[in-house]
Formats: sequence, C-alpha cells, structure tokens
Amino acid sequence: MTRITAVETHDVRFPTSLSLDGSDAMNKDGDYSATYVVVRTDDPDLAGYGFTFTIGRGNDVCTLAAARRSEPLVGRDVAAVCDDLGGTYRDLKSDSQMRWLGPDKGVEHLALAAVMNAVWDLAARRAGKPLWRLLADMSPEALVEVADMSYLSDALTKDEAVALLAEMEPTRAQRIADLEASGYPCYTTSAGWLGYSDEKLARLCREAVDAGYSHVKLKVGADLADDVRRCSIAREVIGPDVHLMIDANQVWDVPQAIDWVKELAQFDPLWIEEPTSPDDVLGHAAIRRAVAPIGVATGEHGMNRVLFKQMFQAGALDFCQLDSARLASINEILAVYLMAKKFDVPVCPHAGGVGLCELVQHLSVFDYVAVSGTLEDRVTEFVDHLHEHFTDPCVVRDGAYVLPSQPGYSAQMHAASVAAYSYPDGSYWATQHPRPAAV
Amino acid sequence: MTRITAVETHDVRFPTSLSLDGSDAMNKDGDYSATYVVVRTDDPDLAGYGFTFTIGRGNDVCTLAAARRSEPLVGRDVAAVCDDLGGTYRDLKSDSQMRWLGPDKGVEHLALAAVMNAVWDLAARRAGKPLWRLLADMSPEALVEVADMSYLSDALTKDEAVALLAEMEPTRAQRIADLEASGYPCYTTSAGWLGYSDEKLARLCREAVDAGYSHVKLKVGADLADDVRRCSIAREVIGPDVHLMIDANQVWDVPQAIDWVKELAQFDPLWIEEPTSPDDVLGHAAIRRAVAPIGVATGEHGMNRVLFKQMFQAGALDFCQLDSARLASINEILAVYLMAKKFDVPVCPHAGGVGLCELVQHLSVFDYVAVSGTLEDRVTEFVDHLHEHFTDPCVVRDGAYVLPSQPGYSAQMHAASVAAYSYPDGSYWATQHPRPAAV
Repeated sequence: MTRITAVETHDVRFPTSLSLDGSDAMNKDGDYSATYVVVRTDDPDLAGYGFTFTIGRGNDVCTLAAARRSEPLVGRDVAAVCDDLGGTYRDLKSDSQMRWLGPDKGVEHLALAAVMNAVWDLAARRAGKPLWRLLADMSPEALVEVADMSYLSDALTKDEAVALLAEMEPTRAQRIADLEASGYPCYTTSAGWLGYSDEKLARLCREAVDAGYSHVKLKVGADLADDVRRCSIAREVIGPDVHLMIDANQVWDVPQAIDWVKELAQFDPLWIEEPTSPDDVLGHAAIRRAVAPIGVATGEHGMNRVLFKQMFQAGALDFCQLDSARLASINEILAVYLMAKKFDVPVCPHAGGVGLCELVQHLSVFDYVAVSGTLEDRVTEFVDHLHEHFTDPCVVRDGAYVLPSQPGYSAQMHAASVAAYSYPDGSYWATQHPRPAAV
Repeated sequence: MTRITAVETHDVRFPTSLSLDGSDAMNKDGDYSATYVVVRTDDPDLAGYGFTFTIGRGNDVCTLAAARRSEPLVGRDVAAVCDDLGGTYRDLKSDSQMRWLGPDKGVEHLALAAVMNAVWDLAARRAGKPLWRLLADMSPEALVEVADMSYLSDALTKDEAVALLAEMEPTRAQRIADLEASGYPCYTTSAGWLGYSDEKLARLCREAVDAGYSHVKLKVGADLADDVRRCSIAREVIGPDVHLMIDANQVWDVPQAIDWVKELAQFDPLWIEEPTSPDDVLGHAAIRRAVAPIGVATGEHGMNRVLFKQMFQAGALDFCQLDSARLASINEILAVYLMAKKFDVPVCPHAGGVGLCELVQHLSVFDYVAVSGTLEDRVTEFVDHLHEHFTDPCVVRDGAYVLPSQPGYSAQMHAASVAAYSYPDGSYWATQHPRPAAV
C-alpha cells in the first residue's frame, strides 16, 4: 500500500512588480505568487503538485491555511484518496471550525484549492494521464459524484447534471480528435497591461495578431482619456475583425461602470470584464442590461459555486471566467461548468498569473470534450509570463493551446524555481536587488 | 505626540466543545475563539482592544492575517489615526496584494475587522466615551465620511445617507434618554442549542420567560422529527405570546429549506434564520416568498456590505443580522445600517460567541439613537457565555442590554484570560484535561 507521507507547503513569490507585468487599475504592483503544495508519498516516483495563485503579501497567510487544511491527508492510503476524490474533497472541506472562516471563500477556500489541486494532480499522475483525459474517461455518474453540488439544487439537480453529461458522452472521442488536430483557442492579455507605454501596447497588439490571435484584451478603468487613447491605438492596430476585450478589474460602482463602458462602446469591445465588485450579482445584471450588445464577463474573483449559480440565475453574465485556483479545485469547477451548460453561458476561464494557464488548458479541453461540446464564443485566456518555472509548461501555437500530454495537472514547478523564489529565505529574496517597492 | 508602538495579536481559544455550548446543525463542536488584537501606544494608560470571533481551528491563520494587516499602524501618531478613522480604514484596506485574497471576505476581512475594532476601541477610549456615544456625537457628514460606501451608490448615495442621518439628528438626545431608562431589548439563544436535552431545553425556556425575555430562539435543521418535538416543547413552555425563532445555520438547499420550514410553521416562528448558504441572495429571496408570513433572517455570515446591498435590493430579508466581527468594523457596519434604514429592514445583530454581545450593544444603541429611531421589530441577540473574560462585560436586565458607560468598545479581555487560553501555549491548553475532541 502506498501512503501519503507528508504535505509540503511553500510560499513562492516572483518579483513581477519590477516590470509592471500584470498591472491594472486595481492591482498596480502585484508580485505574482503561488501557495505551492506538494503531496509526498512513500513511492519516490509519485507525488502530487498543486497551488493557488496570489499577488504577493498575504501569501504566507494562505500557505499557513494550506498547511492546516492538508493535515488530515498525512498517513492516508493513496489509492483510497484517489479512488474517492469526491469523498476526499468533502472530508477536507467539511471541517466546521474552519468553515466558520468562510464558508467557501477567501483564504480558506484558496488554500483548499491549492491542496485539492495537488490531490487531483496526484490522481492523474497515478493514472498515467493528463488531467483532462482522467476526467474525460470518467462516466457522467462518476463526474457528478465528485462535483460539489451543495446549495445548487434549485438551479441544477444531480439527475439533470448526469443527463447533460450523458448526452455528450457518445461523441467525446470525436471531439478529442478535433482538439488534437487544432488545439483549444486562446487569447492574449500580455499586450494590454496598464503600466505599458503606448508604443509597447501598439507593438504587442501587432505581434498578437501576427501570432494568430483573434482576440486581444486591454486593461481599462484608471483614466477615461487614457482608455480612449489606448483603445483607439489597439483597434487601429488590430483592425475591425479581431475581437477587442476590455477589463476594468472591479474599479467601478455600478452607475459609473455603465457610463464609462458607454464611452468605450465606439471601439466595439466584445466584453467588459470585471466592471464592478465580483460579489455583485444584481449589479452585473444591471450593467449587462445597460451596455448590451457589449457582453459582461466576470469570474476570476468569483468566490464559489453559489456566486456563479446566482450569476446564471440572474442573467448577469455573457462569459463565465471561472478561476482554476480560486474555486476549490475540479470538484467545485465541475459544478460551475455543469450549471454553465444548463444556462447556456460560455466558460472562458481566467488565466495568467503563475501557472494558471497550465491548469486552465485542462479545463477547457475537458469542457469541449465532455460538457459543452462547442467552441462557439469560447476562448481561453493566455498570458505569456512565468511558464519557464514549470516542468510541463503549456504550449500555445497559432493562437491555440496544444493539448497537454504528460500525466498530471501540469502544476509542478522546477525545484530550482521553488528554492530561488521561496519567500523570504529563497536565494532571490535573500540576496537580489533591487527589491520590488511593494515588498 | 502619542504614537502606536506595537500591535499585539493573540490566538485565544475557549474549550466550549466540551459542553456543547454553541452546538447547532452545522457547527457541532466549536471551540469559541478570538483573534485578539491590542494596539499599544507610548502612553501606558492608552491602548485599543479588539477582536474577531472564530470557532477554533484556523484561528492561527486569522491571527497571522491580523498581524500582517496591522503592520502599517506601528509608528503612527495616535491623534492622526483617531481623528481620521475613515482614512485609516481605507488605508489599511486598500493593500491591493492582500485584496486579491478576498476581496472583502474570509480570513483577510475577519482580520481587518479585528484590527479596526481595536482602532475604534482606541479612539473611544481616547475620547473618554463608550463607543456608542462617540458615534452618537458625530455629525451626519462625519459618519458618512467614515462609512465604507464603495460599490453601494446604486443603492444608496452619500448624499442620501447624510439626509437619512440628518433627519434623525435633532431627536438623538431624547432617544438616548429612552434607552438609559429601559435598555435595549434583547433575546436569548442560550436555551436552544442543539446538543441540549429536552429537559434542559424546557428548563432554559422557562427560565428565559421568567427572566423577562419576549423572544426565544431554537436551533433546528439536523432532524425534522427532533425539530418538531423540540419546537413543540418550547412553544408549550413559552406560551403563545412569546416569540419563537428558529435557526438552521445554513444546512439546507433552497427547496429543502422551503419544505422543512413549512413543517415547522405550526409553531408560529417569527423568523427562520440562515436557511441556506449565506451567499445566496436569490435563494433567500425565493425562500422568503415561499414561507411568508414567517420572516427570513440572515447575516452572521454576511461577508460584506455588497452582499447586504443585494439582500436589500432583492427583498430577501425581513431581519438583518449583521455581525460586528465579520464586517470590517464600524466603517463597514455603518454602511449596512444606512442601507437597512433606506430599505426599511430592521437590524437585529448577531451576537454570542466570544465578546460579540459586548460589541453589538454599542451598535444597537447607536442605531436607535442616530439611524433607525425605532425599536419596532428590533431585538438584539444575547447569549450568556464567556462574559467573565471581559473587563467591561455587558449587563442584561429584564430582557434588555443596559447601556455601556465605560470608555471604549467593551472589547478588552482580562490579561489572565488571554494568558490562560492562548493557543497552544496558554496554561489551559498546555496542561488541562480533558482536551476537547475537536482539537
């Protein structure tokens, strides 16, 4: 019998505030960071790797929460854990004392995501499959059994969920073949960070189009005149046929969002992303009604499945941007995909940060293969930062993610990266200058 | 000039799981705990005390978060902090790297509550007033300036808020006199914890009525037959004229909540509290429509002002039970009281736990004096546990809170209690047996 012998947690921080990579109207100087979790077993060739993503300070708080949350795993039989991923999730999640600190939100939920992401990686490695294929090989009943359907029955029952999946099951193989041929379409945010100069913006937009992207995203929301100028530059460079998306990162109140977006409507944006508080279901619904046909997108701060349920019920969303490291791993993400299917909302996962692209490629492939069965209105975020720290980095070719083929969730970091960027004692933080101003 | 010299944080846990005090359908074995914060100054006679409340495991995570959040306070001029409580709050809250971990929810928000509760306590002590009077002496403009009105303008503008407060200002003094004569009405939950026997339930209900309470609350939701039997006992003991409230602590999905509450309607409950996920605005609205005239109450897990805004907008609540240690202190609580006034929803704050009764008495007094101006449909929770650990414990007489008179927010614990119950090295945890099973 193989047992879990230890769960390591690491506070890993990259000094991205030095270059303003990732700068937007709300997050001016993030240091992209990971609460990185390694599930060790007594088989030296088998471990599970996972993380949640943060932007610097507070990553120590998340790391402590992940350590506490993972304690019950130590000593368990790996087969029992991996053969009952629903039960493992429910068991870790159900600690009522920790539940008080949420429930299902904030640091405790991010930490649960980090731990369960590592458990899913472990299960996929043990099965010798990339995560998307582990999921695509599961029956509708097995998928619904692992999904966290609690508090959702007024929107989607388990029986309905099984039926949705069963309808797509006979044609899964064909869709896998489709994606093996062409990849899963993505878009780039790398062009449009708020801290970049107009010249850099224009150059990156041109490079994006040349690289085959059909969608380009810009950060907006700090200053209206700047936004008009930057959108104008981008639209001129990309031409009328490439989609332009705009992203405000939650800086506006609801009435302000409506007014501001109307000023930018002249640049024909496909969507306005995060126009206001991520918690504001009714606010997003009001904005959507006011700015149509511009779509409303949100979800990277969507705290849990109950928030997404309401977004769907209220007709608040045109694009669901769930986050692979904020929702509590596949167990909860599955439930959101199933609801999105029922409510006919395309899921375009949030990515970027550290390692989120590595995770979301698995989600999008699985969605096409087993849930939605369509690529219409779907495009997954891609940001070309920090992939060099991963042992199985995502590959993007002609504006599409190439299907991951190695076993696991593509979540393992190089040991040297973890060692160098561990905070505060890794070699980078202990010795490098200049240090980011933010620290 | 007086400066803040240090901010201490303490992980304080009381072994309440031993007696099943506080047991309910969701939280079977909590160890009532405080993330306790002390703001020290270079004046040995001036400090600020505050906390947030948790139920055991994870309190270390909250304590670390409070320590990190409070770091910017050290070295500041006490006068500058206390004379600009809005600016101090916004400054502490606006750390964008930490914001990523919420925003405004979970551990980081609880930690901000603990720190800012201590800052408000400091400000009230410095002014030589109980907190409720510090607030009642502020102008409408000053109150709105300290309130966190971000993301709320679609429901309540600052100008509207000032007008609401200004209307009540001329008659504040009369209402203070009213409450000094009769206290602020409260109800007791101490009778109805789920872990208590039928005999203990009946005895405690009888004692509550004899002590002058006009409202009694029972925990429900674990087993329908048990609930019918326990409600029947309670109703028989308290008679038809005392209000009975029932509290499910979030155990139901929406359809299940509706069915279950209809089974208990025969006992004429005033409200059903926390029937489902605290995040589910639309779910609460659906339940409210289905179970009327039974009222819907929620809020102890209401994560922030944006959640309450939507609860009001959706018509989801009959009683708003905001929590003094989950919302980010007076700054955010004020915004919720102001919205409740506009939407005409009575606020009946959640209390109990450790020290929450000490805090909420200030809130309810302030609400009556300066915001709502009425006691109609208002009753504030009181649970008779753990008050002995506080230096200025609340006093309840004839079913009403007696107005606090000492300077501050009544949040200071005895040093001996902090020392004994600090986890894991305080004298209780280091030496006592039996230890709670939950630890």
